[in-house]
Amino acid sequence: MNPADFQVWSREVATRMEAALGELLPPQSIAPARLHDAMRYSTLGGGKRVRPMLVFAAGLVSDAEPVRLGVAAAAVEMIHAYSLVHDDMPCMDDDVLRRGKPTTHVEFDEATALLTGDALQSLAFQLLADFKLSDDPAVQLKMIQIFAVACGSRGMAGGQAIDLDAVGKSLTLPELEYMHILKTGALIRASVLMGAHCGRPLSTVELEHLDRYAKCVGLAFQVVDDILDEEADSSTLGKTAGKDREANKPTYTTLMGLSAAKKFARELLADAQESLAGFDARANRLRELADFIVRRDR
Amino acid sequence: MNPADFQVWSREVATRMEAALGELLPPQSIAPARLHDAMRYSTLGGGKRVRPMLVFAAGLVSDAEPVRLGVAAAAVEMIHAYSLVHDDMPCMDDDVLRRGKPTTHVEFDEATALLTGDALQSLAFQLLADFKLSDDPAVQLKMIQIFAVACGSRGMAGGQAIDLDAVGKSLTLPELEYMHILKTGALIRASVLMGAHCGRPLSTVELEHLDRYAKCVGLAFQVVDDILDEEADSSTLGKTAGKDREANKPTYTTLMGLSAAKKFARELLADAQESLAGFDARANRLRELADFIVRRDR
Repeated sequence: MNPADFQVWSREVATRMEAALGELLPPQSIAPARLHDAMRYSTLGGGKRVRPMLVFAAGLVSDAEPVRLGVAAAAVEMIHAYSLVHDDMPCMDDDVLRRGKPTTHVEFDEATALLTGDALQSLAFQLLADFKLSDDPAVQLKMIQIFAVACGSRGMAGGQAIDLDAVGKSLTLPELEYMHILKTGALIRASVLMGAHCGRPLSTVELEHLDRYAKCVGLAFQVVDDILDEEADSSTLGKTAGKDREANKPTYTTLMGLSAAKKFARELLADAQESLAGFDARANRLRELADFIVRRDR
Repeated sequence: MNPADFQVWSREVATRMEAALGELLPPQSIAPARLHDAMRYSTLGGGKRVRPMLVFAAGLVSDAEPVRLGVAAAAVEMIHAYSLVHDDMPCMDDDVLRRGKPTTHVEFDEATALLTGDALQSLAFQLLADFKLSDDPAVQLKMIQIFAVACGSRGMAGGQAIDLDAVGKSLTLPELEYMHILKTGALIRASVLMGAHCGRPLSTVELEHLDRYAKCVGLAFQVVDDILDEEADSSTLGKTAGKDREANKPTYTTLMGLSAAKKFARELLADAQESLAGFDARANRLRELADFIVRRDR
């Protein structure tokens, strides 16, 4: 593995993603212009694009066509963007800064932010039904089903509900883990599985290994987020740092302590790599990506 | 056509719909319980079930299996319910009463209402991908695509954005019509087309006629809503009456006057019936439903 190579690849994915999102989002020139403006504002020009990288890296394992992966990744990223827009609203986390810019309800208004999230979710599903993502339409339906579960009350939205309920409460570690498996883990797992499904059919065992990889990476992502939130300042992070601690939200660092959380992240990384043991070099981007997710500094 | 017969049928659809929704919504007994509770609260036990009736009536035209229609109708009704939950929130219409009950953000809280709408949208798409709705998976993908467009920024969510922008402004009649074609018309058209697609393949001409029917019925529905809002009191309507007028929102009655609005509704009804001229008796429920939508008193 060559870190320089990975950096080049990840920049390529980010560039490709930005171009795909720019094309797939409705232009500001068509009505309702303000809503389309807000959808583009909330989705374009920022973010680490971790989920698109997972889609593209998983697609390499099944030799998927990049144009299909671009559509699947755009759908995932629109869902991620919508979740941030709603999560930042005053009735949720009430945050004013995201990716170094004013949050959508601050830049526009609350009602527009609400509708922006709603419309981004619809658009994500529209893309997944509109473009050919698999040679087999039945597989494409399966992809939409996986994706919808990951978004819903037994996935991301459910995780956010548990997160809200947890403010000011003391969770146990298993409870915290359950919350994160839903809140961020579900969409990360869906990203990997959707990328894989865009290509040649994989065996059930291969898909199970990829799912295990994604589960570990998803949890590691959250643990590292908590560590960074504890250690970093707002200017590096591009969002308000230390906010979870202030809001009295349970985090891995508050529950385990900083050094145990770091150890846990390393263990999850090892577990993710172990899950890929049976794959050939086509899984190298997934391997590098797991490293990147755990070792990132923002 | 037999009005008594139609009443029996519409009650049957409502009963079937309630049962399907009850089964397809996650039970309160599973986590996150409060979110699932709110999803059920927002969707079950009320509403005119106009969109499910349209799905079932259109399905009769293509001899579709009732179990498929139940799933498609449930998806439509979940989208409708989610739109009401978000629309009632303080940053939107700020309404406290819906179907004679406290609105979701009043009964629960704003954050839960936000997530309830989000999760209902995901669940609707999940159902459409999860159950077999057509013998041809490619047709099912087409249904999801139609549905997603109807929900998004060029459909319902976009109509709501235009509606918000219109508060306190004077719209022209074409602008008002454009707003309603998106805000309520899009989902009504999707209801008819999805019901039709659940059965045997229809010709392009047949689908175009059904779409014209749905477009007329959708507009008529909104015109009648405005008339009822002008004439009825809150106890009959089950929601706050006269609210649009108070909020200085443009309506058909404020723009056209009450009697011209009533005439317009009758013309749309005639147009809807004309669109069905080429269909046999299997379209009779659609014919009766158009009458019902224009002649209802709440």
